[in-house]
Amino acid sequence: MVMEDNIITSAQNPKIKKLLALQQKSSERRKEGLFVVEGRRELMHCVEAGFEVDSVFGPPAPQGGGHPGGYKLEVDGVSVDIKCKYFEVSDKVYEKIAYRGTTEGVIAEVKTRNLTLNSLLPLGGGREGGSPLFVVLESVEKPGNLGAILRSADASGVDAVIVCDPLTDLYNPNLIRSSVGGIFTVPCVACSSEECIAFLKENNIQILTAQLQDSSLYYDIDMTIGTAIVMGTEATGLTPQWRKAADAHIRIPMLGKLDSLNVSISAAILMYEAVRQRN
Amino acid sequence: MVMEDNIITSAQNPKIKKLLALQQKSSERRKEGLFVVEGRRELMHCVEAGFEVDSVFGPPAPQGGGHPGGYKLEVDGVSVDIKCKYFEVSDKVYEKIAYRGTTEGVIAEVKTRNLTLNSLLPLGGGREGGSPLFVVLESVEKPGNLGAILRSADASGVDAVIVCDPLTDLYNPNLIRSSVGGIFTVPCVACSSEECIAFLKENNIQILTAQLQDSSLYYDIDMTIGTAIVMGTEATGLTPQWRKAADAHIRIPMLGKLDSLNVSISAAILMYEAVRQRN
Repeated sequence: MVMEDNIITSAQNPKIKKLLALQQKSSERRKEGLFVVEGRRELMHCVEAGFEVDSVFGPPAPQGGGHPGGYKLEVDGVSVDIKCKYFEVSDKVYEKIAYRGTTEGVIAEVKTRNLTLNSLLPLGGGREGGSPLFVVLESVEKPGNLGAILRSADASGVDAVIVCDPLTDLYNPNLIRSSVGGIFTVPCVACSSEECIAFLKENNIQILTAQLQDSSLYYDIDMTIGTAIVMGTEATGLTPQWRKAADAHIRIPMLGKLDSLNVSISAAILMYEAVRQRN
Repeated sequence: MVMEDNIITSAQNPKIKKLLALQQKSSERRKEGLFVVEGRRELMHCVEAGFEVDSVFGPPAPQGGGHPGGYKLEVDGVSVDIKCKYFEVSDKVYEKIAYRGTTEGVIAEVKTRNLTLNSLLPLGGGREGGSPLFVVLESVEKPGNLGAILRSADASGVDAVIVCDPLTDLYNPNLIRSSVGGIFTVPCVACSSEECIAFLKENNIQILTAQLQDSSLYYDIDMTIGTAIVMGTEATGLTPQWRKAADAHIRIPMLGKLDSLNVSISAAILMYEAVRQRN
């Protein structure tokens, strides 16, 4: 039961202004320690991964599932009662804050989580056991690409995605959207390249750097041992420190005229080669 | 040399209005038999593939390479003189018609080309010889996904992409942009599913349909013989006629919680498995 007079009907409401700022500005997300999740399915993955929901905004019933003290989230017959603040907003305001239409009918402010490399320890105790498989991305620029990589990382059972010297924050709305929940289901660590290289070396994880001009074909390399697949930006590739740290330089053969693959496509091809070898 | 008085300075100019209509409407593209290409590199791939350029629009020099009777296109030290109409436009008009900034400085109207299945014959005489590899897409909705698949198809040396019962035309600007030239370098045929199935059966190409719930793992199937990898929409998958026509139903293993992969990512994983097996 939501009281009529609690419905937010103006986009000038301070809570709506804050929500929009969290969607638009990484500085705001950092300052508040909050980010925005839209959509029932994404929010379910988020809650199941143990993230803490601060507030939920929903359009008027029947879409809304808000009640005093919380929000009842239902997806495919599964329901979870989230303890959080709930704000019902008018359809007009909801349209302003939502990327999708009201069919999904839920937008949440969630507390950010800053995983460290050490949180991945002990290795092999994670999702699959045995030899961990990591994807490392250096200076990825496009949130959409990082999101797409997280989605594929979920599908291929990658143990963690490590983002080095990121040029985007991990809670960018485009990233969250394109990950389709992967940002929640796959452990994702941000750190410096130096820290990451030291961590991989200490834990005997082989480092495979992937670039166009390299000589070893990716499917000729053993990926059944602990492996980190390292990729750089689409524009400039990997920095020399990663090239030097590598146990092998691998490439995906280019048989066409364009001589280029999208970084999220390349990453998926390499992750699934590891899946194939490990099966 | 372009005469000063030939510069188009108004977005209301009928030539500019027609160009915008070609960008925005598939009906206009069909009616005029023209589509729009932006960017030097894309235009070079387009010209090299034998497409016929009708008109080029460029901003004022130094970006412009127009002259009476044509346009001199330069990319990475290679130059081609295109015979076509040339229209110099003011920076302000160029901004209105361009997706990117003026750095690329060229927008062209190009004649559409409608390849048929029979144009792919004789099989094996194409890009690689031997056993052809086709990618077939049924009812793909998102032009960006189709473009991304064409880019990967170029890289993996796929002989042709066949689009069945398309819900988008092949000359949608998003498709062209996301293909990064793949729409020009890879033969791309639009036809009905019935025609395509008959063509593949006649030419002894095995049909592999890919869906989530299928039982055979994709890397357990021999792709060294003539092969068509068939994929459906992200939303509803393949229609029964394709399922019935299939020689094998294959799936990409899903090891995570999301149970989904982007269709362009799935296609790339399958194409590169064929590359791996054929090497």
